[in-house]
Amino acid sequence: MNLLNGIAASSGIAIAKAFRLVEPNLSFEKKTVSDVGAEVDRFQAAINKSKSELEAIRDKAKVELGEDKAAIFEAHLLVLSDPELLNPIEDNIKSSSVNAEFALKETADMFITMFESMDNEYMKERAADIRDVTKRVLSHLLGVQLANPSMISEEVVVIAEDLTPSDTAQLNRQFVKGFTTDIGGRTSHSAIMARSMEIPAVVGTKSATKDINTGDLVIVDGLKGEVHINPTEDIVERYRNENAAYEAQKAEWAKLVNEESFTADNHHVELAANIGTPQDLEGVINNGGEGVGLYRTEFLYMGRDQLPTEEEQFESYKAVLEGMKGKPVVVRTLDIGGDKELPYLNLPKEMNPFLGFRAIRLCLEEQGMFRTQLRALLRASTFGNLKIMFPMIATIDEFRQAKATLEEEKQKLLQEGVAVSDDIEIGIMVEIPSTAVIADLFAKEVDFFSIGTNDLIQYTMAADRMNERVSYLYQPYNPAILRLVKMVIDAAHKEGKWAGMCGEMAGDETAIPLLIGLGLDEFSMSATSILKARSQIRQLNKADMEKLAAEVLQMRTTEEVIQAVQAATQM
Amino acid sequence: MNLLNGIAASSGIAIAKAFRLVEPNLSFEKKTVSDVGAEVDRFQAAINKSKSELEAIRDKAKVELGEDKAAIFEAHLLVLSDPELLNPIEDNIKSSSVNAEFALKETADMFITMFESMDNEYMKERAADIRDVTKRVLSHLLGVQLANPSMISEEVVVIAEDLTPSDTAQLNRQFVKGFTTDIGGRTSHSAIMARSMEIPAVVGTKSATKDINTGDLVIVDGLKGEVHINPTEDIVERYRNENAAYEAQKAEWAKLVNEESFTADNHHVELAANIGTPQDLEGVINNGGEGVGLYRTEFLYMGRDQLPTEEEQFESYKAVLEGMKGKPVVVRTLDIGGDKELPYLNLPKEMNPFLGFRAIRLCLEEQGMFRTQLRALLRASTFGNLKIMFPMIATIDEFRQAKATLEEEKQKLLQEGVAVSDDIEIGIMVEIPSTAVIADLFAKEVDFFSIGTNDLIQYTMAADRMNERVSYLYQPYNPAILRLVKMVIDAAHKEGKWAGMCGEMAGDETAIPLLIGLGLDEFSMSATSILKARSQIRQLNKADMEKLAAEVLQMRTTEEVIQAVQAATQM
Repeated sequence: MNLLNGIAASSGIAIAKAFRLVEPNLSFEKKTVSDVGAEVDRFQAAINKSKSELEAIRDKAKVELGEDKAAIFEAHLLVLSDPELLNPIEDNIKSSSVNAEFALKETADMFITMFESMDNEYMKERAADIRDVTKRVLSHLLGVQLANPSMISEEVVVIAEDLTPSDTAQLNRQFVKGFTTDIGGRTSHSAIMARSMEIPAVVGTKSATKDINTGDLVIVDGLKGEVHINPTEDIVERYRNENAAYEAQKAEWAKLVNEESFTADNHHVELAANIGTPQDLEGVINNGGEGVGLYRTEFLYMGRDQLPTEEEQFESYKAVLEGMKGKPVVVRTLDIGGDKELPYLNLPKEMNPFLGFRAIRLCLEEQGMFRTQLRALLRASTFGNLKIMFPMIATIDEFRQAKATLEEEKQKLLQEGVAVSDDIEIGIMVEIPSTAVIADLFAKEVDFFSIGTNDLIQYTMAADRMNERVSYLYQPYNPAILRLVKMVIDAAHKEGKWAGMCGEMAGDETAIPLLIGLGLDEFSMSATSILKARSQIRQLNKADMEKLAAEVLQMRTTEEVIQAVQAATQM
Repeated sequence: MNLLNGIAASSGIAIAKAFRLVEPNLSFEKKTVSDVGAEVDRFQAAINKSKSELEAIRDKAKVELGEDKAAIFEAHLLVLSDPELLNPIEDNIKSSSVNAEFALKETADMFITMFESMDNEYMKERAADIRDVTKRVLSHLLGVQLANPSMISEEVVVIAEDLTPSDTAQLNRQFVKGFTTDIGGRTSHSAIMARSMEIPAVVGTKSATKDINTGDLVIVDGLKGEVHINPTEDIVERYRNENAAYEAQKAEWAKLVNEESFTADNHHVELAANIGTPQDLEGVINNGGEGVGLYRTEFLYMGRDQLPTEEEQFESYKAVLEGMKGKPVVVRTLDIGGDKELPYLNLPKEMNPFLGFRAIRLCLEEQGMFRTQLRALLRASTFGNLKIMFPMIATIDEFRQAKATLEEEKQKLLQEGVAVSDDIEIGIMVEIPSTAVIADLFAKEVDFFSIGTNDLIQYTMAADRMNERVSYLYQPYNPAILRLVKMVIDAAHKEGKWAGMCGEMAGDETAIPLLIGLGLDEFSMSATSILKARSQIRQLNKADMEKLAAEVLQMRTTEEVIQAVQAATQM
């Protein structure tokens, strides 16, 4: 087997020797212990060593990967301090006189099984956390070393069953040229980490750890999702050339970092970035982002056990606004619920969470939480160019309520003598079909629209985008979607407002020509897509794209649309 | 407490003496038995008596309530034959030498807890079945009689904690003038039964069984959801008058049974009925239905343990087509999944079932099941005026695939020498926003549209209609919904096709004026709503309603729309 096929998880090409990141033997026997006190002490010592180790990994991750990625280790540290997990283990040692390894594994497995059976993404992640932490504590009890990615000291491609977040955080970016795994998909932790670290990755090969030995020469093709094992010199040569071409292209793109974004016929659009934390700003600036089109504030609320304070939020918003030096920053108010849960809010379980009590629906009811965020935003508004955007708006009533709440908090702050910018644009996400259909009515009341295509597509097609059995219906180029996008853009322009897009579609090379043709004003995407998009837009002629867009709106299937775009742009 | 407030579950007014339908004492002690063989025999005897009793109830229900309502007793009989329930009980008696009552209750409670914790409507219904059956078997073990609604022999209002399906099936329609319960909602079993029996009901009063004694004079106001206990003569008088007015109005409506449906300015529309089984036809004809606008074929597949055969389906379709004597019958192909599950299909559990693998999505993959239904329909087509409609169509590709499959089966039948009508219209449900948005493109390929508003509204507003926390977003009169309805109707007319509606909105008195104004051709509703709708339509002027509709499409909120309709129609 010289070729493995997997999922292209992070683009680019890596050619290097393989380094297998395999687990040590963590097996053990169940034993009866005579001195249970000493056994509990031994368990406590392993917990403490694990804590110190995790703190070191977390600190390294903060520097190398940013606050939000390091949050996973905070979660692990929380597990190691959780009496609901630790007390039963100690009780088990004491009451059954069993060794700590057995008591740990038995209790942890019980929690893992329980959490995994809950059919809830959040609880499944907690199960993964417990599994990760249990391994670490076991390694200390057994006196073996967990595989240590940080000892890698030459250029390698890492081969693993799956990379846990703690593995990935320890990878030295200087030496790790790429990686490939047996399991995982495009949205697995390891895939997201790879894109954030900008190293090529192919995941879900099923058999990489079986077929590849340490020292094998490996090519990871993160563009096509292929892994070549001990390839012929011809293949290596071909990939060296492809890689050189890709690097040359990236170097070309890099020249555009200080350019604005114009089409060939001189129509200007704005290319902005989606961010989750102030740490992401560096990537935005390095990639020539003209603004922040979507600041997801959820991370402030996650990986903790209570709501963030007004002060904590204020500091984050201020950091982003100052960091962008007067460029626009669109902050989306809390979009929690659906697949994003906050355990400390105790939201009821829903049969269809994507159609449930989330985002603005929740915020309009949880007034205290919402007002705290609005106050933090208003206070930060004098430090830059702030625009506020409400998520999941379905009716004009909801927008009016949200805006009135914001206005109340503004008046309170002014009465308290706190400075607030008097130039904050107030807009909405357009991600619910009803809102697109009456965008002309909304346009009379909002300052801008930002189209959230991930949700807009799933609701318009009535297909859960996380459900593989209906994934064929996730069709960004379906004429119905494109018509809704047009309705929103036209409605904005008619009232002299602007329309942006902050879903994945905004950075998609097939969608960009159509969006230029439909007149989209602002494209917000992951920072690493900006330069490529800018390069593409410079080749496009707006007048031609307008004709193309008008044609595809009358086409009956997604396939016809894709072909038309390819024919028109020679893609 | 002379007035109880509850949920208006079935309209009309009942004034009669109360009859409390209360449960006998089914408590027992745990006992050790010496002869476990005799105890198992005693248990078997109770099972057999319960079976005979249930068979009798089922047969009565079939005659009085129809096949689909009787299906619940088939489900109960299945429980009584289920070795997974019965074997553990017998084992328990044998291994622990306990009395049958205890073994039954312990095992049944275990299953009930398990099923109820599954957070799945289907399994919760199974839990209710087991609870119902357990009571019946217990009553035979204890030698007591369950409350017997069939012994009622004078006009009464029945008072109960909740009416089980077996209670309701035994009610004598001649004597039971109405009922009220402590628990239940508008979609609970007892509420649905009440509407199907056309007797007034108020459910969910919380305390009816506590506050009302047998013999009390009770007024059940199923229009307002109120229950008066021993009311003053004034109140009785007022209700007698209201009831007389309501009856007079119904008598007026009844005169329209053989009329067609015309507006005041002579525009014709068709008022059809939604049905679930051939037994429902009697109601359609008695209420002057001009056709069947939606024949839900799911009931054929439910309350059984395997797929219905082609022959079984053919018989049902033929019965409906013949029964309607050439009037149009729109049959919807299987719409299963979402909240409607078939245990024998073993469909995977989904995180968002309403956005999942259901209806046509499932049928296009489960080709064998789909083709069997299509063959049965094609064979039945010569017995009346058949139209076939595919549910949950989101893309033109899906419609083309479904139609091609139908065409293949038609050609096969013709080659086999089987007669098939060559005049079958093929249409689609419009219940997914994408389909409404490109209805103009669909209209070139389909023969008709039927707008399914229940789903269309929930997807367009991104709000689960079963989720109380977002129920404020279920807005039939939202301008976005009305605009989508208009797109569909206009698209149909432009291509010379017709557009109907088969959601709850079609029979709603606030919606009807707007739908007349938008040009809807066919209104399909529950049979009992037809005469009232016909009466309303005869008062409306289409030209005025067109103006009204054009105005409301520019309004920004649902409240404005409702006020405009009320002002225009003096409702």
